[in-house]
Amino acid sequence: MFPDPMVLAAAMPDLTVFQFNIVDNIFSMTVATMGAAALFLFLSRPSVDRAYRPALLISGIVVSIACYHYFMIRHSWAGAYELAGDGYVGTGAAFNDFYRYADWILTVPLLMVELVAVVRLDKNKARSVLTRLVIAAGLMIALGYPGEVISSPEGWTTRVTWGVLSSIPFFYILYVLWVELTASLSTQPVAARKLIEVSRLVLLITWAVYPIAYALGGTEAALTAKAGGAVDPSGIVGLQVGYAIADMTAKAGFGVLIYFIARAKSTGDEAEGQQAAAAAAV
Amino acid sequence: MFPDPMVLAAAMPDLTVFQFNIVDNIFSMTVATMGAAALFLFLSRPSVDRAYRPALLISGIVVSIACYHYFMIRHSWAGAYELAGDGYVGTGAAFNDFYRYADWILTVPLLMVELVAVVRLDKNKARSVLTRLVIAAGLMIALGYPGEVISSPEGWTTRVTWGVLSSIPFFYILYVLWVELTASLSTQPVAARKLIEVSRLVLLITWAVYPIAYALGGTEAALTAKAGGAVDPSGIVGLQVGYAIADMTAKAGFGVLIYFIARAKSTGDEAEGQQAAAAAAV
Repeated sequence: MFPDPMVLAAAMPDLTVFQFNIVDNIFSMTVATMGAAALFLFLSRPSVDRAYRPALLISGIVVSIACYHYFMIRHSWAGAYELAGDGYVGTGAAFNDFYRYADWILTVPLLMVELVAVVRLDKNKARSVLTRLVIAAGLMIALGYPGEVISSPEGWTTRVTWGVLSSIPFFYILYVLWVELTASLSTQPVAARKLIEVSRLVLLITWAVYPIAYALGGTEAALTAKAGGAVDPSGIVGLQVGYAIADMTAKAGFGVLIYFIARAKSTGDEAEGQQAAAAAAV
Repeated sequence: MFPDPMVLAAAMPDLTVFQFNIVDNIFSMTVATMGAAALFLFLSRPSVDRAYRPALLISGIVVSIACYHYFMIRHSWAGAYELAGDGYVGTGAAFNDFYRYADWILTVPLLMVELVAVVRLDKNKARSVLTRLVIAAGLMIALGYPGEVISSPEGWTTRVTWGVLSSIPFFYILYVLWVELTASLSTQPVAARKLIEVSRLVLLITWAVYPIAYALGGTEAALTAKAGGAVDPSGIVGLQVGYAIADMTAKAGFGVLIYFIARAKSTGDEAEGQQAAAAAAV
């Protein structure tokens, strides 16, 4: 089923203490960030209108799933290495790349749902857009994974092939989101327009990190390092740090943006409600 | 990228059983304090007016993040030492200083947000103040860290340099907060004024502990101890205990103060609401 260069139990390249720690620490900080974002999103629901609470709920679930996975990713990282003299060497256990893909399988479709829920496209439109997005997201992740786990320099072309295949649904998703968000702008309250424009941009920028990190982890040097013939394992360090920062921004940061959009779209109703109550009281 | 004296895998200096335990115990007590404060702040939200609930939510998230980090800090402390004869010696694993900095990166900007949220500056003012504060907080923490991880006596001047650089945004933050809190006093309800004056003072006093603890951990004796050539590791013990106490006061204590301010500013509205209800009932 799997081509030859796809070795799942890769030997881990030697790392300096600094290289090991920077990855270990960014994983821990990601756990804290996702957990904090989950508390914020779950507990903020009462401060937005009822119509936008599902969007905050889904956003909170996305970061909760990511919090769990980064906890496990960090555990796997710690298990893959041990301190030996003045550096870290592999224990023989492979670092588990699949946690991140499992996370994406679950959270990327939910990220689409939270965005569509806060923008509030009309029902039929929303269903059609979501169906297309969720299928594309599944394809994107499934096609990226076989390339990700390749860990020998000979697998380079295979990795590039999977990467290119995965990029097709990737660009399709960005295209659909961009078009739909742009089309929805005219129906949004003024206060929310600016925020939706920002979120459109954040989406483009944070999502751009994923192919870049994938490319960084797929250079010949990085693949050689991953196969244990380490010269310079900095590509692997860059890949892990890049994915962690992209995940924090695209999930926790994006979730907070969803909150602000929901809040901007709610304030109107609330103010109107208060005015109505005041008018009734007079 | 990093100067030579910055050795990340410091040899941990030998400690007496008392020295090891006082640090270990204060870490545990900090976990309990932060967790308790989180429960208090999250669950108190319904007892203040709607307008002040975001301030309590953010305060609760700050202490939740600190609770996680002190749990990990304590774990790292336990992993860095083992009992040998009548004292504790290093296991070879370094105590992870980065947890505390990761905590500060996430919580210090949020502390600014909770304060601005409870004082309720007007929208444009709040945005301008917050932007300046958050940027300064980021600089303060980023500039302090390179000095913190220096662990050889030769690095003393480098540590002082980073400390001084980090102090510039530090004093700027205190200055801005002092000026803005003072300016806002006239617009605050009488009941809240006294509390805001107290919080202004608590801020000054608790924040003063951070540079003192940094200085304590940077004496020649402390750096020699950190490099493993221990004569007197009491500087390191003082640093850890000092940071823990400062964190408890500046996060949990300050959070409770935020609650009292929110409560003082709420009582008015609530009392009016009750009076109106009573009047209507007559």
